[in-house]
Amino acid sequence: MAIALEQARRAATVGEVPVGAVVVDAAGRVIARAHNRVESPPDPAGHAEILALRAAAEVLGSPRLTECDLVVTLEPCAMCAQAIAHARIRRLVFGAYDPKGGAVEHGPRLFSQPTCHHRPEVVGGVEETAASALLKAFFAARR
Amino acid sequence: MAIALEQARRAATVGEVPVGAVVVDAAGRVIARAHNRVESPPDPAGHAEILALRAAAEVLGSPRLTECDLVVTLEPCAMCAQAIAHARIRRLVFGAYDPKGGAVEHGPRLFSQPTCHHRPEVVGGVEETAASALLKAFFAARR
Repeated sequence: MAIALEQARRAATVGEVPVGAVVVDAAGRVIARAHNRVESPPDPAGHAEILALRAAAEVLGSPRLTECDLVVTLEPCAMCAQAIAHARIRRLVFGAYDPKGGAVEHGPRLFSQPTCHHRPEVVGGVEETAASALLKAFFAARR
Repeated sequence: MAIALEQARRAATVGEVPVGAVVVDAAGRVIARAHNRVESPPDPAGHAEILALRAAAEVLGSPRLTECDLVVTLEPCAMCAQAIAHARIRRLVFGAYDPKGGAVEHGPRLFSQPTCHHRPEVVGGVEETAASALLKAFFAARR
């Protein structure tokens, strides 16, 4: 989570919403890291999780990351939660809860849907204060 | 939809699930087209919709495609439906309904969630038979 938070900080410095993610393989090695990149290059799907999953898939040469965990500073939205299911991620660890946009513990609660084909183990609230502080500072500065 | 179906056919020829998508701008021009590319290069988020949205964002220089429509041969999953909301797509037109993986008219019905921040106009079932036939032929050949 420290590396994911560092990625989130980097996002803020380039004007992107400060969310960072890493993918960790079965041996505990960080094989991919990313932060939100929605504005530049323009990509509506440029969330940290999507970019980290894609990078990890490239490293492992497979779209199925069955032995891997994903660590992200914010509760994933529906797009990212479903991508995590598509990637067969073993465990999802996230920082701040997101009552508005989150889709794991809020809203559609994707992994609890009967149609969900893969449910990772989920651990929420890890380093919640640090992850949340980054987001609050970012949006306060924009207002 | 004819161009989206042509993309879906191309997907099948390279061993990808035959789903195709196009993004159409306010003037009715096709500005992006894509088909599923999950296996090569490996990308768990490599659905036609995500790839078409990203390509369209690049063309327009913005992640917000407010005047654009997305046409896709299959009902979007939760990942793609949320990406469509993130991109502020004006109208979503899809072909075959997907009771198992679809997240627009099935499962989490993302655009009906109270937390959904953008709801496109939705038209489903366009060229449903053709879109569905492609998928059935693909999976029958794999069994």
